[in-house]
Amino acid sequence: MIVTNREIYLDNSATTKVSNAAADRVYDMLVNTYGNPSSLHTKGLEAQHIVEGARDITAKSLGADSREIYFTSGGTEGNNLAVIGAALRRRKTGNRIVTTAAEHSSVIEACRYLEQQGFEVIYLPTDRYGAVSEESIAEAVDENTVLVSVMYVNNELGTIQPVEKIRRILKRKNSRAVFHTDAVQAFGKIPVRAGKLNADIITVSGHKIHAPKGIGALYIKKGTLITPRQFGGEQQSKIRPGTEASALIAGFGQAVSEIDLDKISVISELNAYLRERLSEIEGIVINSPDNALEYVINFSVRGKKSETIVHFLAERGIYVSSGSACAKGKQSYVLKAAGIEKELSDTAIRVSFSKYNTKQDVDALTEAIICAKGIIADI
Amino acid sequence: MIVTNREIYLDNSATTKVSNAAADRVYDMLVNTYGNPSSLHTKGLEAQHIVEGARDITAKSLGADSREIYFTSGGTEGNNLAVIGAALRRRKTGNRIVTTAAEHSSVIEACRYLEQQGFEVIYLPTDRYGAVSEESIAEAVDENTVLVSVMYVNNELGTIQPVEKIRRILKRKNSRAVFHTDAVQAFGKIPVRAGKLNADIITVSGHKIHAPKGIGALYIKKGTLITPRQFGGEQQSKIRPGTEASALIAGFGQAVSEIDLDKISVISELNAYLRERLSEIEGIVINSPDNALEYVINFSVRGKKSETIVHFLAERGIYVSSGSACAKGKQSYVLKAAGIEKELSDTAIRVSFSKYNTKQDVDALTEAIICAKGIIADI
Repeated sequence: MIVTNREIYLDNSATTKVSNAAADRVYDMLVNTYGNPSSLHTKGLEAQHIVEGARDITAKSLGADSREIYFTSGGTEGNNLAVIGAALRRRKTGNRIVTTAAEHSSVIEACRYLEQQGFEVIYLPTDRYGAVSEESIAEAVDENTVLVSVMYVNNELGTIQPVEKIRRILKRKNSRAVFHTDAVQAFGKIPVRAGKLNADIITVSGHKIHAPKGIGALYIKKGTLITPRQFGGEQQSKIRPGTEASALIAGFGQAVSEIDLDKISVISELNAYLRERLSEIEGIVINSPDNALEYVINFSVRGKKSETIVHFLAERGIYVSSGSACAKGKQSYVLKAAGIEKELSDTAIRVSFSKYNTKQDVDALTEAIICAKGIIADI
Repeated sequence: MIVTNREIYLDNSATTKVSNAAADRVYDMLVNTYGNPSSLHTKGLEAQHIVEGARDITAKSLGADSREIYFTSGGTEGNNLAVIGAALRRRKTGNRIVTTAAEHSSVIEACRYLEQQGFEVIYLPTDRYGAVSEESIAEAVDENTVLVSVMYVNNELGTIQPVEKIRRILKRKNSRAVFHTDAVQAFGKIPVRAGKLNADIITVSGHKIHAPKGIGALYIKKGTLITPRQFGGEQQSKIRPGTEASALIAGFGQAVSEIDLDKISVISELNAYLRERLSEIEGIVINSPDNALEYVINFSVRGKKSETIVHFLAERGIYVSSGSACAKGKQSYVLKAAGIEKELSDTAIRVSFSKYNTKQDVDALTEAIICAKGIIADI
């Protein structure tokens, strides 16, 4: 096998390396611009200026107005605020929430909470690739529906959901229902534009786009009312109060400004190359659909337990995952919901690229998998 | 007046300068240990190790067990999770919440939310200094009380509340009620020990102790059940899920490890010195009690509007505030609740020290105030 001295990080759906410029930005804020953005004096205004600059950058990237951007502590808080905040605000209007069985745990669990609050939640089944059909959405949405939440890109399979079509159907079936999309795995990789998606609420997260962990943003379309999840000071129009994490926000703004959607062509090549190399290995089954987001490939190594492969590769400086990091190794409910056989879900590996990956990384990975197949005993 | 080239930052109750070592720690994490603490591979475990190390440091500082520490995005989230989480969990047990009119907005507003949910909240009045009496607590707490929330140190006046006495009374009156204390302004300055306070839940925040903004912690005594405010992955026993802000947590741990409670003697001297210098200026009224936390002095400059003084000083590189930063310049409800006359609350200035301040800072401040009195027109 190829022996490498360097780390080969292929777990970018879990989290990404912070860009040097974003890390520098954070450090500079911590050391030099430590004022409280809400303070009335210059030291506060300096910080506020940078926070608002980052808000502008984020807004521009999403094709939104700066007043439609709210900083959060990340994707989990964003999804909770979106789903619970939108539903509770409409409690008197209706009772039904429509989502899918393949959403991130922060949407699924927020919906479970809402069920306890008396809402009826429809968790639509998905196809073999975790995709939901527009037809099933159309069927599930009724007059009583207050919220539809469908993720843009699935975090385990890379499946791109037909969010624009869903939105159009929703408009027709029930124009008052709020449409939320968890775009955490799409943002920074493919266009996430508020206007084109026509979503009312969009969740994005920093640490998937080379910004630090602990920061994210919510786009809330002007006029879309939600109930806040935390209460306190005057920050962020009281939709998300609390002293802004100004250094992280600055780092987030920097990472957003570094987004280069044209990178998708390089990633496409890497993706094709990995698929080609994997096709040469016996017993590999690709779980991601052919038209998945190119940044993600989920595949199974027949007979070899996911965790064993993950550890084997990690010992050789190659980092991949067996599924969502948030599940901490628990069995994937996404693959289960997609109807993927246990044999395949127990042996599933997710490779997720970033702009820092190369063909050499793919070579090292595939050679190491061949090696693992020879060494690791079958389940 | 004394002309200074350097910044004189005297607004440490609003936020503090991040310590160099904490900033370095954050940067190092961002660049070198960027793994997701929940990832199963080495890159994740490295990050997890550091997160757990910071949790241990925090626990030790609070005299708690590491499993009793939950990282949050800061004081506002912490207070919300504590107050709303504890109350909702006990909805079937009782209906009353006892707090004070001088709490931080994140406690007050969380209580207002609970009122909408059907709870009865008693906002106890305070004395002239924002202090609540043990007797009034004893009177307000009944069998139906599920939660008592009293801050340790008031953020505007520095008033130290009799939390230990309150806790003892509460034990006697209703031992099942949860006792929460918002210790954001006490932590790092005076001992905040879970055992001695005997609190069930304690809120602390990073950016008041020279850690970054966007990170805080909640101590939740073993066995104290609360309803989470956000739902999602497996992190932090699902009490506070979401990918941990690992770099901020590392910086927080560093700042906690730098806490030196003996500094209070130096701050006491600074406090006495400032009081002495202020006593030489005509028209100054001290609003803080004599036995306030030495880090804070709130005083009024008769006839001169707070905001005007704040700006005048800021133009000269001296940073103080007119009250809570979270209020963004809105009139102080704390001073109002304390029954401080409008004339004094309109002209109130809060000076808050940190370990980085010196007597020269006090000299520059008092000289600038004298200057301001001569230049700024009366209200």
